[in-house]
Amino acid sequence: MSEGFTLWFTGLSGAGKSTLANLVADELRSRGHRVEILDGDEVRTNLSKGLGFSKEDRDTNIRRIGWVCRLLAHNGVIAISAAISPYREIRDEVRAMHDHFFEAFVECPIPTLAERDVKGLYKKALAGEIKNFTGVSDPYEAPLKAEIVLNSETETKEESLARLLAALEAKKFIHPAGGPR
Amino acid sequence: MSEGFTLWFTGLSGAGKSTLANLVADELRSRGHRVEILDGDEVRTNLSKGLGFSKEDRDTNIRRIGWVCRLLAHNGVIAISAAISPYREIRDEVRAMHDHFFEAFVECPIPTLAERDVKGLYKKALAGEIKNFTGVSDPYEAPLKAEIVLNSETETKEESLARLLAALEAKKFIHPAGGPR
Repeated sequence: MSEGFTLWFTGLSGAGKSTLANLVADELRSRGHRVEILDGDEVRTNLSKGLGFSKEDRDTNIRRIGWVCRLLAHNGVIAISAAISPYREIRDEVRAMHDHFFEAFVECPIPTLAERDVKGLYKKALAGEIKNFTGVSDPYEAPLKAEIVLNSETETKEESLARLLAALEAKKFIHPAGGPR
Repeated sequence: MSEGFTLWFTGLSGAGKSTLANLVADELRSRGHRVEILDGDEVRTNLSKGLGFSKEDRDTNIRRIGWVCRLLAHNGVIAISAAISPYREIRDEVRAMHDHFFEAFVECPIPTLAERDVKGLYKKALAGEIKNFTGVSDPYEAPLKAEIVLNSETETKEESLARLLAALEAKKFIHPAGGPR
């Protein structure tokens, strides 16, 4: 049970990846796991400064996050990535470098995201003011075989969290509630 | 004792950083620690593809290694860097981001390195065939306050290893021989 693994969120901007990443991280820490969240923005600052949002640069960024997650996971840490990671092929490449990998697709339709528009980005993107905005002016390829599909339109974050934890428990990736046995 | 830390080797190419990194990693694993070596070449492939050997690119590479070491160290891992890391200021910047940091300078004079010339690089560098070769055509700034100075000209690798382990034990960074208490 001291094995690490990588929990890889994917989904559009504003879908709820970071929110769920933080909720699940808190819960897993309380169960005695070491947990590290690799946040898209922090990684861009520290590992990928100078990279843009072309397909090639996005791919490089995701490969780097994947490589760091793998390092952590191999050392008993639960590594959580909350980057958009729009391209299926690169996500699958990251999966292939792992012994234990769990992909969580956080689904939410664009109209709902545009209505929430937490960062005010969808309005701009839909008005054509942001180039390479995933889901609007840049592709997003949904996973075909994610370990779990969460939906931030139809379920509350608490419901998503509960389903996610149950799925991780079922795979014996995490300690049950109450901490290590 | 489950605290991680970063063991940061610095020194010229061929001085013995990787050799010592591997020796100390084997010993620390046998004492029950989780250990990860961040090798300069592997990092260049996975985190720093496209970067060259200008001061700016070298600095970026070292900052990235430092950031990953910190992630590992904060999660209970002993992160070992064996990159040349020629610039004092950047090494000190990496030190400053850590709670627990141990710098090991592996010293060896250029004539000795040129005589060994394991990779055949010193001959070429001294003939002016390699630009930006640290110690020959590019600067190397020795640490002023390394936690330990090892010398691969005057001591055997076994002697260096023994002194290094003793220094890490004295700081209570590692388990004593025989594994965790």
